[in-house]
Amino acid sequence: MQTQKIPHVVIVGGGFGGLWAARALARSPVRVSLIDRVNHHLFQPLLYQVATAGLSMPDIAAPLRHILRRQRNVTVLLGDVVDIDCNARRLRCADGSETDYDYLIVASGARHAYFGRDDWAAHAPGLKTLDDALLIRRKVLTAFERAEAEPDADKRAAWLNFVVIGGGPTGVELAGTLAEIARHTLRREFRRVDPAAARVLLVEAGPRVLAALPESLSARAAAQLHRLGVEVHAGRAVTAVDGDGIALGEERITARTVLWAAGVAASPLGRCLGAPLDRAGRVLVADDLSLAEHREVFVVGDLASRQQDGKPVPGVAPAAKQMGTHAAQTIRAELAGRSRKPFRYHDVGSLATIGRMAAVADLGHVRLSGLIAWWFWLLVHILFLIGFRSRLIVLINWSWSYWTYQRHARIIVGQPPPEQAG
Amino acid sequence: MQTQKIPHVVIVGGGFGGLWAARALARSPVRVSLIDRVNHHLFQPLLYQVATAGLSMPDIAAPLRHILRRQRNVTVLLGDVVDIDCNARRLRCADGSETDYDYLIVASGARHAYFGRDDWAAHAPGLKTLDDALLIRRKVLTAFERAEAEPDADKRAAWLNFVVIGGGPTGVELAGTLAEIARHTLRREFRRVDPAAARVLLVEAGPRVLAALPESLSARAAAQLHRLGVEVHAGRAVTAVDGDGIALGEERITARTVLWAAGVAASPLGRCLGAPLDRAGRVLVADDLSLAEHREVFVVGDLASRQQDGKPVPGVAPAAKQMGTHAAQTIRAELAGRSRKPFRYHDVGSLATIGRMAAVADLGHVRLSGLIAWWFWLLVHILFLIGFRSRLIVLINWSWSYWTYQRHARIIVGQPPPEQAG
Repeated sequence: MQTQKIPHVVIVGGGFGGLWAARALARSPVRVSLIDRVNHHLFQPLLYQVATAGLSMPDIAAPLRHILRRQRNVTVLLGDVVDIDCNARRLRCADGSETDYDYLIVASGARHAYFGRDDWAAHAPGLKTLDDALLIRRKVLTAFERAEAEPDADKRAAWLNFVVIGGGPTGVELAGTLAEIARHTLRREFRRVDPAAARVLLVEAGPRVLAALPESLSARAAAQLHRLGVEVHAGRAVTAVDGDGIALGEERITARTVLWAAGVAASPLGRCLGAPLDRAGRVLVADDLSLAEHREVFVVGDLASRQQDGKPVPGVAPAAKQMGTHAAQTIRAELAGRSRKPFRYHDVGSLATIGRMAAVADLGHVRLSGLIAWWFWLLVHILFLIGFRSRLIVLINWSWSYWTYQRHARIIVGQPPPEQAG
Repeated sequence: MQTQKIPHVVIVGGGFGGLWAARALARSPVRVSLIDRVNHHLFQPLLYQVATAGLSMPDIAAPLRHILRRQRNVTVLLGDVVDIDCNARRLRCADGSETDYDYLIVASGARHAYFGRDDWAAHAPGLKTLDDALLIRRKVLTAFERAEAEPDADKRAAWLNFVVIGGGPTGVELAGTLAEIARHTLRREFRRVDPAAARVLLVEAGPRVLAALPESLSARAAAQLHRLGVEVHAGRAVTAVDGDGIALGEERITARTVLWAAGVAASPLGRCLGAPLDRAGRVLVADDLSLAEHREVFVVGDLASRQQDGKPVPGVAPAAKQMGTHAAQTIRAELAGRSRKPFRYHDVGSLATIGRMAAVADLGHVRLSGLIAWWFWLLVHILFLIGFRSRLIVLINWSWSYWTYQRHARIIVGQPPPEQAG
């Protein structure tokens, strides 16, 4: 059916890196196959809002084939790529199907990692996918329900203690929002417990939260968290996680709800490529983001390890988009007989939100915190959402939420995890 | 903590019957406990929209404790009631906790039933809860994805055949919407298959669809389904359901997606009450909806069996609301020393929607069909949704969907069912 001469570009992963690569190949003489395990592109910066019941799934996710429906040279396929043979230029999915490529862009991203303590995963779920978000939502909302039904005071307190491990942007967002839910959203809705009595602890092994930001903004973020009612424990490493809570060295903290925002590990697909990896399992790429041994294979986004001016290119959405676009442009250039250019990351600044009307922003020359940073954060996130409908609905949802303190998506679905079922 | 003299009313189930009963006890000298297995009230008439990706979960569901937050005499509890001892006036939840009552209102509704063929359940999921809706959404959307990836023509056709069993309102809504998705929503989004080639079959064992409506409206509904592209097979009983499709006697229909909308059975809680049941397992109640042997126990909604003027009171939302309100008023009357009054169902008419701009309505003296019935259906359903935010968002979603033919909630989450995982 396909003309043999048209080069076949396969993209693995429909996140920011993969989707921007596909888009940048729109008017190129190539056919593109975009393969992802799930059917949707996810706006990951707002995933914590789904986990904390502020937004619904479709507000931040859209079917990949819908986003790309007008780009006739792209075929979207649902598939779980498990192996890549760079010499044969072929990849294999979990269902056994194989796909040949002329160019490959690997954008399979990262998962949360437990630093070798995979037994912690059952007790402290992380947040990378919509399924993760629904699990965390269920865990958090069920904890308040269990507290209301629990006659024993100690057990009740354990249901009202929430620990977030990891003081990066996701951990800060989760902890701030949990405090807001306990203090405001659930107010007056319980008869036997006072949700405002809930404790929210944010534990960070490093010396400060939001370590990627300048120290002054870290300090402001910590102060804003404190005002929201979050107990910040920086410089303290978690030594144990189980069904009853966590340990910080000698000290035990009882909590039935523990969330993991402490670390990510690169997708295991990086190991199939035969290229050198960094300590986090990310693939060391050449200056045009290709592999030194296979110039037709590119790695972009969180899976790519690239230094620039002595600093690593950060694992953030703008970097993934820029990398995806660059890999596509390199393929286009080569097909047009032009030479490859090196990738340069253009830093657009860092943003982190903390909770209701609180955020910090580092825009290079300008640093913002508090309400103005929060408005800036809101504006940026709504602008970058895909699709006009999503922007409109998310704006309505947020306006609603900030007038009424309500979070409309407080719906528990799915089976409770075993430790909550009893 | 509680004053002993205040009567304790326990309501089991937060659907239309239970929630309306709780509300009707707002200014009564009682304390009320509302117990449900899930944390939300569900607007069941629009559940098929969640299953077919037109609406998100929070659009049609709201936390029970949020709805009742201002009614200080109600405690909402998450619990799975498994046994009721009418003599001891006590009920027991799955976690072993027990609750005593002075008055009991059982409103635990119905589940779908497979008429003794429980082995069909794994292949033909029914639609009663949000979890059911997410499962059906995943099954339907995954079927198109699998068709796109399938090289074998016969297997591909099997992924594009959809069978809905049962021609009641839910079956008609599901079949009509599936046809719309295949013909319009997914148009131009696939490269290898044409979703419009999908077949949607609606199978009904009785002689006509929407048997509860007058024959003329049934005929119009069948004609509207036909126009939407649904193949209606009335008067044909399903004799087998398995992973490959269904059998109608000698004829086999190959289909990887089979949905069940054929029958409901009353909640098993009815059997705990020691009262006589009808053939469908519903509890035969006295004229005030109480049990003849236990006047302090009321059964309302789909679990109650009550004849009026020689016809059964139908299992629809208005009947459940009226019954819940009546049971509450009977308790209030008795506590005020007044006598009990018999329940009378006030028929407000029947409505069924078929798909895009198509519906039928039987309002007693007036019968509508087509576009005008659809507008009436839309108006009624938006008016009866709980909460202003839901009404606004659902209105926006529907306007969007009808301008663009898009269904925004096309997000597959959760593990695929085993027969789709391969």
